[in-house]
Amino acid sequence: MATQLIECVPNFSEGRRPGVIAAIVEPFHKTPGCFVLDYRADEDHNRLVVSLAGRPGPLQDALLAAAQVAIARIDMAAHRGAHPRIGAIDVIPFTPLRNIDMAACVALAHAFGRRFHEETGIPVYFYEEAALRPERKKLEVIRKGQYEGLREAVKTPERRPDVGGPVLHPSAGATVIGARRFLVAFNVNLKTTDLQVAKRIAAAVRASSGGFCHVKGIGLALADRGLVQVSLNLVDHEKNPLYRVLETVRMEARRWGVAVAETEVYGMVPAAALLDSTAYYLQVAGFDPAQVIELQLLEKIGDGG
Amino acid sequence: MATQLIECVPNFSEGRRPGVIAAIVEPFHKTPGCFVLDYRADEDHNRLVVSLAGRPGPLQDALLAAAQVAIARIDMAAHRGAHPRIGAIDVIPFTPLRNIDMAACVALAHAFGRRFHEETGIPVYFYEEAALRPERKKLEVIRKGQYEGLREAVKTPERRPDVGGPVLHPSAGATVIGARRFLVAFNVNLKTTDLQVAKRIAAAVRASSGGFCHVKGIGLALADRGLVQVSLNLVDHEKNPLYRVLETVRMEARRWGVAVAETEVYGMVPAAALLDSTAYYLQVAGFDPAQVIELQLLEKIGDGG
Repeated sequence: MATQLIECVPNFSEGRRPGVIAAIVEPFHKTPGCFVLDYRADEDHNRLVVSLAGRPGPLQDALLAAAQVAIARIDMAAHRGAHPRIGAIDVIPFTPLRNIDMAACVALAHAFGRRFHEETGIPVYFYEEAALRPERKKLEVIRKGQYEGLREAVKTPERRPDVGGPVLHPSAGATVIGARRFLVAFNVNLKTTDLQVAKRIAAAVRASSGGFCHVKGIGLALADRGLVQVSLNLVDHEKNPLYRVLETVRMEARRWGVAVAETEVYGMVPAAALLDSTAYYLQVAGFDPAQVIELQLLEKIGDGG
Repeated sequence: MATQLIECVPNFSEGRRPGVIAAIVEPFHKTPGCFVLDYRADEDHNRLVVSLAGRPGPLQDALLAAAQVAIARIDMAAHRGAHPRIGAIDVIPFTPLRNIDMAACVALAHAFGRRFHEETGIPVYFYEEAALRPERKKLEVIRKGQYEGLREAVKTPERRPDVGGPVLHPSAGATVIGARRFLVAFNVNLKTTDLQVAKRIAAAVRASSGGFCHVKGIGLALADRGLVQVSLNLVDHEKNPLYRVLETVRMEARRWGVAVAETEVYGMVPAAALLDSTAYYLQVAGFDPAQVIELQLLEKIGDGG
């Protein structure tokens, strides 16, 4: 069977103490078959965001090892930070990357959630595609009131955790675990200083005002550059691919005689999200990602662990 | 240091005996750090073409092991086939893939050529970027007269091998070793049955008639599909990228009111050749291939061996 690869971006409530950050990240570096793509600690948010990829097995082992470090070193009762959070290991989302589908990632999130609770005692909420209650698809519903508010609210039926509870872990709070698609951050910068143009285009393409179903977006001014930006999140790049969203932005911008200055792909992106647009623009018939040397090499090298 | 990856497509003079083909390919499968992307045996050509990728060290070891099998099992005096050839191990080209440049691949070809001769006794010619004589850049110059003709011609100063000689190996002939860029096979199918349109466009874009310096091309009829094809080889996709060649074909086709029906990328292609065009069409500013999850994963996994 072809090697399954998933992406996982766990968020920990520690962005200030370098020693603790290093200790949390260490198991990810040390576990064969688990690969650290990137990690960023933010002091204001007092939060650590780690981008991982790997096989499901090693990834879960490494997550549990890192969780034990976080439990030992983080006390939520003393935690302060600008970013909403309910636990020391705040959120763990699994995203399908290669040779695994969303249903399998949801099953993985559920199995991992139970194991996570057994080994740590931390109660677990399931969110996004792995949500067991419709309202818990949204992270903000689960995190309402944050750690401080949830300490009491957790005892009510509507806030009861999906696994464990009905009280929070004394120092580590609760953890949100789930499965979601890869989110592509894509900005389109326009050659105008008229912010209304960016706002109108964002409204035309985003789901919340009736545009593409899997696009979020806002209009922003890039004052120092003399441009405006349509700042977009593509939450399902298969259904709403980059080229289609960009060409729609371009088409709308023509109404005001405005051209696209440039675009930005922010952060990590899966190859498929780009190659899909390559095939569109180059009009490639029957293109197979297995034709890309590096992708086939990754397949052959397999898990590397 | 980042893992160096090269591509290598050795050609062997055996396309008919499955047992011999399997024995030649076996060392490539078995050597850790050497990966078989593809291999194709052609009975008419009586030739085996293997697509490999890997680190320079393991790749060279596997090539020598496969060469020993080819020497033991192939007798050039008895070989018949439609494809030009001068040896049992006919051609070995090295192509830079990741974290290695052409100069390093040329040095590698030269070092490997000397080791190859020492361990096999087969004389070696260097071609393409590794050529030591300008005329030997071209494979057809080295292969002139093929195995049968070269047996005598090899004794003349102008045909003397670069390493070894002045006689051929008694059963394995000679081997051509070199370094070259990745060749992208790219076809543009046009919505017309007028072959002249394809021929004129091929002439407009190819180097031999004054077009792009690193493009080869011909016009062909796809009679059963009611289309014509501009069949192109991009021998330097960095200097003459896919999007530029395609948009030039499109622009020329407009002269006859002809549209592009579709394109075909044939065989393997390096990610950079596609991502370069993605960045053009999507107007992505400052795009870094390290943002592509799979490419970074390949980097992290490293040699896998």
